Amino acid sequence: MEPNKGLVSALFLFFLLHATMASPTPKPHIKPRPPPHHPCRHLTFYFHDIILQRQEFQKCHCSHCGFSPWGNRTILAGQSHFGNLVVFDDPITLDNNLHSAPVGRAQGFYIYDRKDIFTAWLGFSFVFNSTQHRGSINFAGADPLMNKTRDISIIGGTGDFFMTRGVATLETDAFEGEVYFRLRVDIKLYECW
Amino acid sequence: MEPNKGLVSALFLFFLLHATMASPTPKPHIKPRPPPHHPCRHLTFYFHDIILQRQEFQKCHCSHCGFSPWGNRTILAGQSHFGNLVVFDDPITLDNNLHSAPVGRAQGFYIYDRKDIFTAWLGFSFVFNSTQHRGSINFAGADPLMNKTRDISIIGGTGDFFMTRGVATLETDAFEGEVYFRLRVDIKLYECW
Amino acid sequence: MEPNKGLVSALFLFFLLHATMASPTPKPHIKPRPPPHHPCRHLTFYFHDIILQRQEFQKCHCSHCGFSPWGNRTILAGQSHFGNLVVFDDPITLDNNLHSAPVGRAQGFYIYDRKDIFTAWLGFSFVFNSTQHRGSINFAGADPLMNKTRDISIIGGTGDFFMTRGVATLETDAFEGEVYFRLRVDIKLYECW
Repeated sequence: MEPNKGLVSALFLFFLLHATMASPTPKPHIKPRPPPHHPCRHLTFYFHDIILQRQEFQKCHCSHCGFSPWGNRTILAGQSHFGNLVVFDDPITLDNNLHSAPVGRAQGFYIYDRKDIFTAWLGFSFVFNSTQHRGSINFAGADPLMNKTRDISIIGGTGDFFMTRGVATLETDAFEGEVYFRLRVDIKLYECW
Repeated sequence: MEPNKGLVSALFLFFLLHATMASPTPKPHIKPRPPPHHPCRHLTFYFHDIILQRQEFQKCHCSHCGFSPWGNRTILAGQSHFGNLVVFDDPITLDNNLHSAPVGRAQGFYIYDRKDIFTAWLGFSFVFNSTQHRGSINFAGADPLMNKTRDISIIGGTGDFFMTRGVATLETDAFEGEVYFRLRVDIKLYECW
Repeated sequence: MEPNKGLVSALFLFFLLHATMASPTPKPHIKPRPPPHHPCRHLTFYFHDIILQRQEFQKCHCSHCGFSPWGNRTILAGQSHFGNLVVFDDPITLDNNLHSAPVGRAQGFYIYDRKDIFTAWLGFSFVFNSTQHRGSINFAGADPLMNKTRDISIIGGTGDFFMTRGVATLETDAFEGEVYFRLRVDIKLYECW
């Protein structure tokens, strides 16, 4: 009887595995990992947004709300800048010092999208072209600026960050009035190729 | 011979599994599930877009097309609002009643992108902060408004919707002139973490 | 002893498989395929951007920068069009001939986001409704226009391109002054459902 036991074990194992591995009916794509998830790559950058004198138009704060575009932007948009589109092209560094050598640039836009408080919708990329990193990471999501930390989605990447996905936690690290603010961007990638 | 049969079965099984599990050559990442796909999570929300009196600038319909920004928007953009950027921050509810308790807010923008018919490009988030859901779902895609239902992409999420992806089907459920419209948003998530 | 060998092999195999298949601790989601990656689908399209006479407002080059929206756009935005938002709805063809039958339309926007050189942030969709393809492919990313080829992310899709992800390589194929340019869009999909 002993030999049969071995065969039975192997067959039992085979069917058990077959049942779990090659189910012929379509199943929801539920990833099996239990939370908390561990990133496959973790990077931190600082993003320096410098708003130069607006009348010099070095930094473009677009203002185009309402039906009277010749009106005063401040009045139209109110205290929360609602509806303002801001285009940026800012240096990113590895530490919180604006004067450190930039490792890339943050390029994209945000739109202030609430009337009562500061909040924005962001679409932007980190574009790297240094010895450390080449390629880009693309971001999108809502940014409730009043929260200490805010999570947005990492929706794709190219080059060294080919096909990546993840979550970025933004934290306003410092600001000086409305002319400078620094964001700490904690990048946690959960899909690495 | 019997004992060998058990061993042979186990070895055969081992090689069979090895062959399917650890293929050494790179292969295209074709997901093996046959269509139709079943969502791992299915949610429906109603999104209420209320366009208040424009001269009050409560709702910002940005108007900034052409080289004469002081001209009349309606003339510049024509009948289809081509080129208009609309920023929104709207309540979302579980049923189609505007007065139901909102479970979150839809924040983002759309740009009317065709001259001849109504169509738009959308980038927005559902931001949840209720007992039912916390976190955000991020959306992007073209919205051919004249079609009864339109599919856009769910490109990521945070919190309860960590790393999710899927497809959202939009349907204009009701509208009153140009001052109110209600979208039914059918969310089908196919990647759940 | 022979029978036990079969049993031992099966048990050993069971534990080995158990260890590799059902690891109880969360692990980073590192996809096992070595580079270079092979796309599961590869498509090439040509995208024809025709900028009609601007004073006719057939093509909307939005201009809304700075605090003086009644000023001259060219002065405000400078030589690089910094801060300009361009909305487009352009035909896409299978070859580089503008007069070929379009297989779909490219709809979305770009924002010029640098002051010193031409660069843009793109959000757009290819919308197909032909015998060959139905559905949409959604794109986002930075487009450093001065580079011969630029990679952006494919962040999702619907219909025939359900849930797809990948990378698109853009190449300016031809241009005539500022009134026409043609982009070659090489689409490499790495997630196919």
